[in-house]
Amino acid sequence: MSDFWSSFPGMDTALSAVSEYIRTATASSNPIIQDALSELFEHQGKMLRPGMLILASQFGNPDPKRIYPLAAAIELLHTATLIHDDVIDDSPVRRGLPAVHMRYGKKDAVLIGDFLLSRCFLVAAEYTTPQNAIHLGKAISAICAMELDQDADRFKPSLSVRNYLKKIIGKTALLFSLACHVGAAEAKAPPQVTERLRRIGYNIGMAFQIIDDILDYTGNERELKKPIGNDLRSGLVTLPLICALRQDREEKLLPLVQTDRFPYSDIPTLLSLTQQLGGIAEARRYAQLYTERALREIAQIPQGVAKQNMEQLAKKLLIRTY
Amino acid sequence: MSDFWSSFPGMDTALSAVSEYIRTATASSNPIIQDALSELFEHQGKMLRPGMLILASQFGNPDPKRIYPLAAAIELLHTATLIHDDVIDDSPVRRGLPAVHMRYGKKDAVLIGDFLLSRCFLVAAEYTTPQNAIHLGKAISAICAMELDQDADRFKPSLSVRNYLKKIIGKTALLFSLACHVGAAEAKAPPQVTERLRRIGYNIGMAFQIIDDILDYTGNERELKKPIGNDLRSGLVTLPLICALRQDREEKLLPLVQTDRFPYSDIPTLLSLTQQLGGIAEARRYAQLYTERALREIAQIPQGVAKQNMEQLAKKLLIRTY
Repeated sequence: MSDFWSSFPGMDTALSAVSEYIRTATASSNPIIQDALSELFEHQGKMLRPGMLILASQFGNPDPKRIYPLAAAIELLHTATLIHDDVIDDSPVRRGLPAVHMRYGKKDAVLIGDFLLSRCFLVAAEYTTPQNAIHLGKAISAICAMELDQDADRFKPSLSVRNYLKKIIGKTALLFSLACHVGAAEAKAPPQVTERLRRIGYNIGMAFQIIDDILDYTGNERELKKPIGNDLRSGLVTLPLICALRQDREEKLLPLVQTDRFPYSDIPTLLSLTQQLGGIAEARRYAQLYTERALREIAQIPQGVAKQNMEQLAKKLLIRTY
Repeated sequence: MSDFWSSFPGMDTALSAVSEYIRTATASSNPIIQDALSELFEHQGKMLRPGMLILASQFGNPDPKRIYPLAAAIELLHTATLIHDDVIDDSPVRRGLPAVHMRYGKKDAVLIGDFLLSRCFLVAAEYTTPQNAIHLGKAISAICAMELDQDADRFKPSLSVRNYLKKIIGKTALLFSLACHVGAAEAKAPPQVTERLRRIGYNIGMAFQIIDDILDYTGNERELKKPIGNDLRSGLVTLPLICALRQDREEKLLPLVQTDRFPYSDIPTLLSLTQQLGGIAEARRYAQLYTERALREIAQIPQGVAKQNMEQLAKKLLIRTY
């Protein structure tokens, strides 16, 4: 497992238990499913969403027998969307491994994603309240609708900051928000705290995705376990480029991202121009803004270990390099 | 709506109510979703699965406010699998219209299918018991796993009858069985009747799929609203061909379905050879067998309108031509 959580007491044990639920929930006599998923879950990412769900549950009285399966459901959902996204975006690599569709073909990747979605709902139906299952269903619908918006805008570099922010809501912030919300609700945290955690998850999610998009420009490929410049290659315009274009008074960058050339332009040139025009720095300010919003909400919650953990998480995610 | 249900009193009204739930459940501010789904649900098929769910609920005390949404959930699930299946099989036509992926691209088709899946679960979480939501989740997992099996066997014409039957369990019988099961359970039908209906749905589903596969050989394209020979063209070996191969003593058919030639062989020749070798007649006997099993189970249920309806349905599906 990633050592991301090593500074959060008890989290490694908790996430191991979540992994066990994931293994049980995805057990199948089908060899393709078994093969594809065991590999994928062995090379688990940071398990941020289940981790946040567990942190949020600590604001109430968490029953591990209900919280861990729910955390597993969130990770199953996340993994399902990753598999389908990689099919959709034709991304070759995930977690340092060939993406599922590269190894098993697009057909099987669609089915494996559907399988995970159904297991996510199954776990939710078995272990959570109908109300939390409803939150889950609504969140997935919203995520799909927002992804469809994003697909419609592909290869249109005229994207505004506003549109970008709207899109990453669906891509990331909704699921972070959902994780915090259902974790707190399932542990019967006070309603105002639960509501606040929903907003905290949202803001941390926004900051997280902006940093993710920055790392696609500036990151270290070995640390990230994926090539940089990936988004540009698949025609995805993210905040650094949008911010850089706003400073592109001499029109050095603009011609390179016109629809007739983009995304066949030289990727290293795009990366360095975006950096030079201050696109990275400006994007980082947005991430900081969302982190500050999260921290302001966290500050309103009564003192305690749960609060300290959430604060640590928000800060840690802002300065991460992988 | 299809006039398939016209001989079942009250069913047209009930299915109109189900359609209304479907419209509400799939409402979205996203124009692509709105566009794709309104068209798809306007050209509704026979709505067999929701219809069966409603028939099964009549063995208990159905509350329309719970049964109709559950019937809508089953149709949403079915539609989601159709959209993903058409992506997977590259089928160009569905319900006489271009398949969703033909109009909106494969990427959007995957997302629209995911959207429908999530709406299916949302409706289930809102209107049904957790136990029925669990049945739903399990059924979808099983369907995906079985589809993956099917994909692995594509273009391998050595398929046995046993393998074929195993596959159509996942493709059709499970969902028919689920529809009957959850319809009866939600209406609190007696447990033995509910259990019997699960088996009835299964057997009707098996017969239904065999007839469907026969119609791909013998059907009238205008009545079916799709080209015949579709399965062969996409490399899908179904029961008529398997039965014909067992009678192919002079090896007229076998060479045409060897992996190096199939599915590029002449489709009309394959269709007529399958017919001549008795493959259609033999497949029809299998359909009859499953229908008889369903009828034997139905015979065990106490007299009443619900029983008569179920009997009528089983017989009607066996002799259908579209």
